[in-house]
Amino acid sequence: MPETKRIPVKNIYNLMVEVFTKLGVPNDEAKVCADVLIESDLTGIESHGVGRLKMYCDRIKAGIQFTNTKIDVIKDFAAIAVWDGNHGMGQVISKLAMQNAIDKAKEFGIGCVTVRNSTHYGICGYYAKMACDQNMIGITMTNARPSIAPLFGVSPMLGTNPICFGAPSDKEYDFIYDAATSISQRGKVELYNRAEKQTPEGWAINEEGKTYTDTKQLLVDLIEGKASMIGLGGMEEETGGHKGYSLAVMVEILSSALQAGSFMHHLNGWEDGKRIPYKLGHIFIAMDIEKFTDIKDFKRITGKIMTQLQNSKKRPDKDRIWIAGEKEYFQEKEIRRNGISINPGLQKNLITIINELNLEAYNNLF
Amino acid sequence: MPETKRIPVKNIYNLMVEVFTKLGVPNDEAKVCADVLIESDLTGIESHGVGRLKMYCDRIKAGIQFTNTKIDVIKDFAAIAVWDGNHGMGQVISKLAMQNAIDKAKEFGIGCVTVRNSTHYGICGYYAKMACDQNMIGITMTNARPSIAPLFGVSPMLGTNPICFGAPSDKEYDFIYDAATSISQRGKVELYNRAEKQTPEGWAINEEGKTYTDTKQLLVDLIEGKASMIGLGGMEEETGGHKGYSLAVMVEILSSALQAGSFMHHLNGWEDGKRIPYKLGHIFIAMDIEKFTDIKDFKRITGKIMTQLQNSKKRPDKDRIWIAGEKEYFQEKEIRRNGISINPGLQKNLITIINELNLEAYNNLF
Repeated sequence: MPETKRIPVKNIYNLMVEVFTKLGVPNDEAKVCADVLIESDLTGIESHGVGRLKMYCDRIKAGIQFTNTKIDVIKDFAAIAVWDGNHGMGQVISKLAMQNAIDKAKEFGIGCVTVRNSTHYGICGYYAKMACDQNMIGITMTNARPSIAPLFGVSPMLGTNPICFGAPSDKEYDFIYDAATSISQRGKVELYNRAEKQTPEGWAINEEGKTYTDTKQLLVDLIEGKASMIGLGGMEEETGGHKGYSLAVMVEILSSALQAGSFMHHLNGWEDGKRIPYKLGHIFIAMDIEKFTDIKDFKRITGKIMTQLQNSKKRPDKDRIWIAGEKEYFQEKEIRRNGISINPGLQKNLITIINELNLEAYNNLF
Repeated sequence: MPETKRIPVKNIYNLMVEVFTKLGVPNDEAKVCADVLIESDLTGIESHGVGRLKMYCDRIKAGIQFTNTKIDVIKDFAAIAVWDGNHGMGQVISKLAMQNAIDKAKEFGIGCVTVRNSTHYGICGYYAKMACDQNMIGITMTNARPSIAPLFGVSPMLGTNPICFGAPSDKEYDFIYDAATSISQRGKVELYNRAEKQTPEGWAINEEGKTYTDTKQLLVDLIEGKASMIGLGGMEEETGGHKGYSLAVMVEILSSALQAGSFMHHLNGWEDGKRIPYKLGHIFIAMDIEKFTDIKDFKRITGKIMTQLQNSKKRPDKDRIWIAGEKEYFQEKEIRRNGISINPGLQKNLITIINELNLEAYNNLF
């Protein structure tokens, strides 16, 4: 039985560029796609990196995602814009959209670009970091295929609808928060499956409102729409279940109503028994810190907030308090040194892609 | 023993205007303060309405909040501004700040005003609704006195730091989300105290990281800084505890770093054994929907999202799925009809205020 292998970052990056290019994505845009995906692998978020390469290939081959990204500007008014992504490459659309928000922020202090008819844009943190690197606050949210049930409901209605917020600090790493509005998500359930562990109670429910622990059954039922993930805060008002659910609704509104785009079950990718584009919507907001205050003051205050939290009194069973962005910073150092972990299943996937596209240079990648 | 009484809305409103005016707030600004407070009582959120009147009186009398609101514009650049509230009336500062954000949104599509050195601004939803009533999305957040522990920590470091988001719909009510980033908050614990019930497990911990159920002890320890509220998502990463905690950090950054203002323990209201102003910071964002898309399309999509969620399949033990803003809408109808509930403790508070300020016209309010 094959083992998990650590492959140099550069090799995985080059493979992804090759794959996207061979599928028809212009080479410079293929690099953007690979950039966003590798950012996820580098920060240890395996669910949104090279592990998703096959998903993108499948969608391109199925004709529901287009390699030639053509953006229509629906509205452009001072600090805001609305774009239509025409089902092109989500990463290409989104990098341009965040840069446009950043440019608008330079001119007006704050900029906002919303997008409709886009495709899966990868890890949100990439776009927030773009803003941080230019001394800005970066915010992005996106809707997604329905998987969360509303509080007191049992049908998957809302996507895992992440909220991402980045702010630069004077520490080695910025504050980068990037998380779904559900307690957990399918990618995490898959990790439990590989580890042959039960799913924690409260993450997901069946159509009778009962929580799952049978990980294999949950994965089957999620595909068939018989299982729903639970919003942050859990299943009762007493535990704050209305909060995660409502934050997911907020993200849904910002990802669809502002751009007259698609929402909830229209994002299922199916219509009349045929696969159709996912028609995702995103929002990107940038705030030019120097228009508000001295950038040094901002970074100092943000850094102090982070450090004081980290240094505050710990629970007896814990020896460390983490801040959003910190684990990813250390992960990146380690992964750049030792390579990206590719498990046997993923090795198989990638070998299939390499063979199908005749990428002979990568025959000995594993 | 006196009973809880229902008092006509108009009478409570007039009393609050009188009290603020008598304390030295200019009459038109006293009306703004009363407007914001009554909005809370009308929507059934007892913790932020007339129940807080005594708190404002005490702070004004202690000289840590000023009745004469003087705003300094620190920065004003195109779509953004930074204000200093000079410890004036939080409601007056905040209504002007949200209106400024709305005016900027009209001109640039989006507007953002941040404030420092403000005071308790009441219910967030009031400001989001201002935006909705002008066909805009409204967002506001504020920091607050430290009460939440970071994940794996046991010290109160972050405020209950609420996130508020409002979007207009074509239904009878708008989508108005307004909630702390903690599971619950002191006001709710006080309700459990009045009902002589145990506090739900997981809401708060002591310095050893143990959860409270003894409601009376929790209220004492919260005042002494020995208890901390828990962020949305609970006490472990598995339950999403890093998410609520990190959202509270996001709100802290947006309420302090962007305006070079105060943060975390600086908001305690004490220095060298003396009471000092709370130095709160807020952020207000407005988005002019018509600059993005047709307002009818926006309201229709938002309304559909709300209705489809409400109509989705229910858990066997529940007969209704709620949407943020819905309960408050029905509460307001009922309260306008039957008056605001004033419990015996609050009656006593208000009678004390009425006597101290010689507001003879209100001697027979109860």
